[in-house]
Amino acid sequence: MGIKNSIPKMTNYGNRGMSLEEDINITNNYYRQQDIAVIYKKPTPITITKVDYPNRKEAVIKEAYFKTPSTTDYNGIYRGQYLDFEAKETKLNRFPLQNIHSHQITHLKQIIKHGGIGFFIIRFLKNNETYLLEGNALFEFIEKNKQKSIPISYFQEKGYLLKMKLNPRIDYLQVIDQIYFKGGSYETITKK
Amino acid sequence: MGIKNSIPKMTNYGNRGMSLEEDINITNNYYRQQDIAVIYKKPTPITITKVDYPNRKEAVIKEAYFKTPSTTDYNGIYRGQYLDFEAKETKLNRFPLQNIHSHQITHLKQIIKHGGIGFFIIRFLKNNETYLLEGNALFEFIEKNKQKSIPISYFQEKGYLLKMKLNPRIDYLQVIDQIYFKGGSYETITKK
Repeated sequence: MGIKNSIPKMTNYGNRGMSLEEDINITNNYYRQQDIAVIYKKPTPITITKVDYPNRKEAVIKEAYFKTPSTTDYNGIYRGQYLDFEAKETKLNRFPLQNIHSHQITHLKQIIKHGGIGFFIIRFLKNNETYLLEGNALFEFIEKNKQKSIPISYFQEKGYLLKMKLNPRIDYLQVIDQIYFKGGSYETITKK
Repeated sequence: MGIKNSIPKMTNYGNRGMSLEEDINITNNYYRQQDIAVIYKKPTPITITKVDYPNRKEAVIKEAYFKTPSTTDYNGIYRGQYLDFEAKETKLNRFPLQNIHSHQITHLKQIIKHGGIGFFIIRFLKNNETYLLEGNALFEFIEKNKQKSIPISYFQEKGYLLKMKLNPRIDYLQVIDQIYFKGGSYETITKK
């Protein structure tokens, strides 16, 4: 993700101070602790070129490079369904499509084709708004438009605004319930 | 995984010469190319402590450490189902349980509880035999025994022997079909 919110880290409540990645990690921890879903961020893919082994237990990587990811950052299981998504922040009021690699698009298309739930979570830092956009809605934009970025209005129209809360911080599974599980939210299921 | 088969790499066919990790990666590539399943190995989790940024595009990691993984190595989607597994090799004729971290056990238990398919692929290098063992069969062994390793006979009895082929090299989804999809193999589905 890289781009960080410049608001000081001290404000550790409400909807300020944390990067989208931190917000999602905290939310996923909450989901796991509450036994709602098992969703993780994948480790950053790197190519290791030099390792020091002073002994078996203390390996130190001395040279490594960041690799272009071939999949999305997050995946897991929710209500028996495979779930897969990518999360990005932007300082603009448009989302530049170059922020997503072409094989991430290919990957999410494959996931949806195989019956998984695939989507994007995009935060517009200036507006302090975070949207969930279904994979298919993003693919449709790419197919129908030649623009290299998606205006925030497209997210406002086709996406779902994610509200910031204390716990879970960014409750994206509530929106997933709305879209994919018409039978009610996880709260009605886990709290019975 | 670390432990490599010592047979020379030149033999790049049949059931020799490659580590289990390589066999599984090649198999997963095949599954993706044939549009059978979307399963990936997760990147190795590391903690980065020093990065050089000569410029924006050429970051070099100068110091990093291997982290204990909190999940298993492989996950993905197959026939609409979430799939999750760990793969290990051993030179012994017993599988030492210390090769699997306790949070990997916890993780796979959670996955199965949430409706996912969770299992282990274990290769016994001496015998040149590779077994798929369902998560629950491994958990049952741990609960009922105080031994710190599982004898190969347990795999022979409760597991499924994976045959080595040319393509896919190690067709573990055939066994998954057998256990979880009584309706037939993926071949009858994808080739209709």
